[in-house]
Amino acid sequence: MSEHVQVCEVGPRDGLQMAAGRMPTDAKIAWIAAMAASGVTEIEVGSFVPARVIPQMADTDDVVRATTQIPGLIVTGLAPNLRGAQAAYAAGAHRVAVPVSVSDGHSRANLNRTPAEQVAEVARIVEWTRAQPRKMLVAAACSTAFGCSIDGTVPEAAVLAVASGLAAAGADTISLCDTVGYAHPAQIRSLVRAARAELGSKVDNLHLHDTMGLGLANALAGLEEGIRAFDSSLAGLGGCPYAPGASGNIVTEDLVFMLESMGFRTGIDLDKLVATRALLAAGLPGEPMHGGLAKAGLPKTFRMAA
Amino acid sequence: MSEHVQVCEVGPRDGLQMAAGRMPTDAKIAWIAAMAASGVTEIEVGSFVPARVIPQMADTDDVVRATTQIPGLIVTGLAPNLRGAQAAYAAGAHRVAVPVSVSDGHSRANLNRTPAEQVAEVARIVEWTRAQPRKMLVAAACSTAFGCSIDGTVPEAAVLAVASGLAAAGADTISLCDTVGYAHPAQIRSLVRAARAELGSKVDNLHLHDTMGLGLANALAGLEEGIRAFDSSLAGLGGCPYAPGASGNIVTEDLVFMLESMGFRTGIDLDKLVATRALLAAGLPGEPMHGGLAKAGLPKTFRMAA
Repeated sequence: MSEHVQVCEVGPRDGLQMAAGRMPTDAKIAWIAAMAASGVTEIEVGSFVPARVIPQMADTDDVVRATTQIPGLIVTGLAPNLRGAQAAYAAGAHRVAVPVSVSDGHSRANLNRTPAEQVAEVARIVEWTRAQPRKMLVAAACSTAFGCSIDGTVPEAAVLAVASGLAAAGADTISLCDTVGYAHPAQIRSLVRAARAELGSKVDNLHLHDTMGLGLANALAGLEEGIRAFDSSLAGLGGCPYAPGASGNIVTEDLVFMLESMGFRTGIDLDKLVATRALLAAGLPGEPMHGGLAKAGLPKTFRMAA
Repeated sequence: MSEHVQVCEVGPRDGLQMAAGRMPTDAKIAWIAAMAASGVTEIEVGSFVPARVIPQMADTDDVVRATTQIPGLIVTGLAPNLRGAQAAYAAGAHRVAVPVSVSDGHSRANLNRTPAEQVAEVARIVEWTRAQPRKMLVAAACSTAFGCSIDGTVPEAAVLAVASGLAAAGADTISLCDTVGYAHPAQIRSLVRAARAELGSKVDNLHLHDTMGLGLANALAGLEEGIRAFDSSLAGLGGCPYAPGASGNIVTEDLVFMLESMGFRTGIDLDKLVATRALLAAGLPGEPMHGGLAKAGLPKTFRMAA
């Protein structure tokens, strides 16, 4: 058997929160169910944030409740604070993703807290979550780990300090996020290597944006450094409100194509996955959709990894 | 000093030959001159093919004559046969690029010859060229080296056989071309490694298309295998008439961004290069233009390699 790589679909959260329009709740649920049916086993389905801040996420509670009924699907909800994590737990989320900006400027703009304050919030979330009867994983995400549109360069030492703080806080996993899409492959290699040297396989995921067209090259660099989990979004939806010009996440279907072509196993049926773009388009008319594979079709030479 | 990577702009040939419109000769020359002024030192400016086959290339003779006057620029003309190579020589081209399809189907469709017949044509071109008073390099390009939209899978052994034939024929350099954009990084690594093990640094260039969004990931894989020259086209123009759905070449400005970010030196000023997109747009109105960097702008964290 080929080695498995985990693809975590974040389009319903990272993609839809940036969309011009608002996808109806039923459409979100149908789209998520279709992606799950294509073999996607981890989906970040929404954010537990105030509806006045991100109106597109106002129905996250309903979306989590519905999608946690899908057999075999691990449902993640994003929560910026303890209150959000409690809401995620109450809704039945299997995992809560907590963003922690490494750069001060992004942290204040996005979370209205310093990085250190947000690390402390993660500690509170872990403590509260562990005291509950049901298990919910706490996945911490180091935002702006590869650069910031506000602060510019983010030193590797700053990322390692935040990541170590998150490990000490008890986060189950730590993701390194190129929130604004500034990363290049050598930087990915260097930071992944340093973070895993210090924290081991707890640093298990890369969250990449394709702002400069380098998204899959960066994924390849991470893959070669041992990363076996990637966030991505169908049709490359997504962006960041505090990162002007930042385009969407890496394109799920192109990522899966790359991984399967290289002999890694994702468990995802590419034809079925590409077909779910129709549900996205129907639920969010007019939203730009990206991706090479969907346009060109699967090449004659393609074969799924065994 | 950082290590140099050679970027060979092929937009005026591979891009324009596939364009819906036809760029006026003066506009081509101005665009090429502007790219050269931004630091691009190698440009494939056109094809010596019958005007009835590719009308966009009918003025290649004039374009070569004009652009060979640009100081420091190495001007390449594509020629599918001896007659074309002779025309390239007469026009003053510094280098002639000769395509040799590895797959039989593409070879017949594109060149109306078998691969072996085309290797023999390269031998004739080399022989004729060496007998001339002026030096002109013969760059052979192994088309469909990573798969073919007509024949499907192209065995590595077939590529190596053609490449060895081209080396024996006396080609100065050999390029491996993902003509239809089917390649994945593991395949790039494998073929580059095998070809260079057999033929050494004569195999010096990758020609990649971004059909599936994997273009820069494939470039990275090649880079890591020692390749230090890449074809690319400004704004990702390009395609292949016998490869339905195949999109353009990898985007020059995104490639340069990746290379310079990683500490390689291209000699290209990215701001100036991006500015030449305006000349392309003016000369070919309505043609789709791609690329992340041009849309997002250079990030705050970017610095040219020293």
